[in-house]
Amino acid sequence: MSDNFSWKAIEKSELNQSYDLELALENIKYNEDDLVPAIAQQHDTGEILMMAWMNRESLALTAKEQRAVYWSRSRQAFWRKGESSGQEQHLKEFRLDCDADTILMKVDQTGPACHTGRRNCFYMVVDGDELKVDSDPLIDPSELYKK
Amino acid sequence: MSDNFSWKAIEKSELNQSYDLELALENIKYNEDDLVPAIAQQHDTGEILMMAWMNRESLALTAKEQRAVYWSRSRQAFWRKGESSGQEQHLKEFRLDCDADTILMKVDQTGPACHTGRRNCFYMVVDGDELKVDSDPLIDPSELYKK
Repeated sequence: MSDNFSWKAIEKSELNQSYDLELALENIKYNEDDLVPAIAQQHDTGEILMMAWMNRESLALTAKEQRAVYWSRSRQAFWRKGESSGQEQHLKEFRLDCDADTILMKVDQTGPACHTGRRNCFYMVVDGDELKVDSDPLIDPSELYKK
Repeated sequence: MSDNFSWKAIEKSELNQSYDLELALENIKYNEDDLVPAIAQQHDTGEILMMAWMNRESLALTAKEQRAVYWSRSRQAFWRKGESSGQEQHLKEFRLDCDADTILMKVDQTGPACHTGRRNCFYMVVDGDELKVDSDPLIDPSELYKK
């Protein structure tokens, strides 16, 4: 945390008060792996598409390229959403929460967001004492990753 | 992961196929602190209210009590949202993602979700090379926690 930067002070900001983005990104509360969770929401319908992780550099790349650039924990590499599937997320709005430890992106999602071919990743719903699958793939995932 | 339980197999489920919830909760991919992130979305407007953390027990309590019961990392205790502020989250829908490592709750939020008194926690938006505060508290936080 920089000396001259305080999330606590920002809580009491006047409406439309602005802060330097680079300084803010430096001061985000990254976890022990230097990552923050990033939620992707379809900008016009409000549907939650997925949640993945970003580091300092992928946040800056997302802002610069105006598309979601995650950090893949399994591949330990930048993950420009859609680079292998074609299912890109174009950035409409880029937000940070009060604790500076969660990102919210409003995006325009091309086709399915989920690697299973479903529109979004949250296709399992609690139903009494069961967990039920309540959506079908739009596209067979083998089609999705052939592109 | 139980022998007879596979998230990979569930990906290929027929629509409306169901699985035992208790077994599913056992098999969620909790992080090294035994937690998963849980997103709270206002059920009717689609607004993302906040993100916090749950453990195995708080997931079960949320399902049972039909209200958001998080695990407070700072207090190391269950956190029934609204227990000190009165701003409860009543459960409308309870979902899990494809990787079994993120929760989505659709809730009915009483008043502001954010500890700052704002309706939601995502009140800082990227605006060019600045980060801008674009919503005001509904209630002064000192009022909120006096209750």
